[in-house]
Amino acid sequence: MSSPILDTPAPGVHRRRLTKPDGRALWLYGRQPIDPSIEAVSPPGATPGDVRPNPHLRYHPLRGEWVAYAGHRQTRTFLPPAEYNPLAPTTDPSRPTELPAGAYDVAVFENRFPTLHGGAHDPPASIVDTRPARGACEVVVFTQDARASLASLPLWHVELLVAVWADRTRELGARGDVAYVFPFENRGVEVGVTLHHPHGQIYAYPFVPPIAARELAQQKAYYDAHGRGLLEDHLRAEREDGRRILYEGPRATALVPVCARYAYEVWVAPLRAAPTLADLTPDEVRDFALALKTVLMKLDALWNRPMPYIMAFHQAPSDGEPHPEAHLHAEIYPAYRMPGRLKYLAGSEAGAGLFTADTFPEEKAAELRAVEVNP
Amino acid sequence: MSSPILDTPAPGVHRRRLTKPDGRALWLYGRQPIDPSIEAVSPPGATPGDVRPNPHLRYHPLRGEWVAYAGHRQTRTFLPPAEYNPLAPTTDPSRPTELPAGAYDVAVFENRFPTLHGGAHDPPASIVDTRPARGACEVVVFTQDARASLASLPLWHVELLVAVWADRTRELGARGDVAYVFPFENRGVEVGVTLHHPHGQIYAYPFVPPIAARELAQQKAYYDAHGRGLLEDHLRAEREDGRRILYEGPRATALVPVCARYAYEVWVAPLRAAPTLADLTPDEVRDFALALKTVLMKLDALWNRPMPYIMAFHQAPSDGEPHPEAHLHAEIYPAYRMPGRLKYLAGSEAGAGLFTADTFPEEKAAELRAVEVNP
Repeated sequence: MSSPILDTPAPGVHRRRLTKPDGRALWLYGRQPIDPSIEAVSPPGATPGDVRPNPHLRYHPLRGEWVAYAGHRQTRTFLPPAEYNPLAPTTDPSRPTELPAGAYDVAVFENRFPTLHGGAHDPPASIVDTRPARGACEVVVFTQDARASLASLPLWHVELLVAVWADRTRELGARGDVAYVFPFENRGVEVGVTLHHPHGQIYAYPFVPPIAARELAQQKAYYDAHGRGLLEDHLRAEREDGRRILYEGPRATALVPVCARYAYEVWVAPLRAAPTLADLTPDEVRDFALALKTVLMKLDALWNRPMPYIMAFHQAPSDGEPHPEAHLHAEIYPAYRMPGRLKYLAGSEAGAGLFTADTFPEEKAAELRAVEVNP
Repeated sequence: MSSPILDTPAPGVHRRRLTKPDGRALWLYGRQPIDPSIEAVSPPGATPGDVRPNPHLRYHPLRGEWVAYAGHRQTRTFLPPAEYNPLAPTTDPSRPTELPAGAYDVAVFENRFPTLHGGAHDPPASIVDTRPARGACEVVVFTQDARASLASLPLWHVELLVAVWADRTRELGARGDVAYVFPFENRGVEVGVTLHHPHGQIYAYPFVPPIAARELAQQKAYYDAHGRGLLEDHLRAEREDGRRILYEGPRATALVPVCARYAYEVWVAPLRAAPTLADLTPDEVRDFALALKTVLMKLDALWNRPMPYIMAFHQAPSDGEPHPEAHLHAEIYPAYRMPGRLKYLAGSEAGAGLFTADTFPEEKAAELRAVEVNP
């Protein structure tokens, strides 16, 4: 069932593409070449044709944006036991997971119930514009170790993960139905995650989604006016100010932005305005990974408990055009504003769009700066 | 301490303005004239000058929007007992609440710890633009009955409340430091509300906030192109389709929009494109109130438990200009997508701006249509 492809998408990064018995693609990545005898598996009940994803988009006329609908109403006959972890490597062949056993460090596979899918077709007619929700949804399993976390992985492993995100950005971005590649991580029950195995996701959108579009437009206007990058200049000003800097390396930095919307919001960026993950040089990958690991360790060490967060990567669109204005960065939104106190997006945030904070970014940055970590 | 003003801002609506001992304004509203002997109270510890709100705004250059910071770090000497309800009428004069005893139906007062404040001045210098967070934050107490809810109030009381929102829209909108008046309700612990007494809030912003600005721009472009209102045309199409209509009256309608971002999202609007709450005729107030009460009753009856939600009123800016494109409406975002399953705004929603749903608005509307209520 597997169609093995062995290659090295980046120096020191090995990859193998396989096809799961149910037809979905699987990519295994490692620092060592991937054993060609590894065979892909599918979870119980996942057979070719069991799911024919046909998500669609509807236009929201008041907001001028799309909303995605994916009704996955297939009969799910397999009821997994509580301890079943679909992201762990398969140990019992009679009870396969999403991933095979074997030596690899990171795995990526197509989501079984995607919100965006290359095969989407024929949306229902409606009183608003509709279109097929083309694109892709992939799951990125960070490690085989269910008890690890992105912060706890060794630095080389985080570097590999950055290379994986870069590889997926390159490959998905080359697809005709993809306009924007968006890697992200939802972490913790507080942000709705029930699966604790360290993993993230990648959404490849058929259009540039609104928040990315807004940031790109702001960067474009600034670049056109000043001939320099908005985030480049902002990072320079942050480093001169210095109070909110959490990590300062030769190629990357991490900070609580002066305009943080979440109490412990953190941005991580290469110093140079690399448009996408795929544009990072090996030196930049290394320093970006160190910046990322440093701040995630600080967030987990702050209250000595795993900090739930959303981590979003913002980069240039995948339109094949040069984007000198676009500056890749990660935005991390920790869920808590105080120990035990979640930040809720309530009336002003969700209904009007003004974020309100009763703490100052300088205070929260000082707390995180004081946390000693050894990345 | 009180400076009573007795007046009738709308037919059958009586109002009295008082000043609390700590200096904040209080408005009492009722169907009957308000007893002029009622005196305003302040909670323990609230004295003139105990809080000098000085919130400020910082510009978020990547998003092109403002973020509000209000650090209220005064020593709060009064630790209220668990059963202390600051929104209940005062019963024990030695332990005053925010509200006096006496005959009134709805009360509005200035928030003691506002995110926006008319007296805000001198923001800190920063690497991004800053400005004083002028404007106002008010609390709207819907009823004296702590166990009631907006849905459970008699229709005349909901009508009065709509008149109160209209009155506050008019008065706040006339202020020089206010560009947009935004009434809203956060309801339920699931959206971060710890105070169960039925109440909402009003934020009066010194600029048009991003979500309202976006909806207004969409409506303006449509109006300029078609000479008709975007929401007017949308409501007409929804009513012709019919499947998602929850209430259809002579002057107002309520529906699950075809492009619902939340599973049970509901919009309530007058049929005519009234720009603001203050532009509603008495007939429209009555029907709008009935539409609102009907859908809130349905949401509470759906699973026979109070539905947590955010309710946001979107209306025209308070710039004194005509806004034929703007069409007042309420957007209600229920927190649950299934019994016990919250909708989380995770990576795609919070980081990219694409809302994803695994249910269809037609299904959810059918569920709500099937719920019988007697408003």
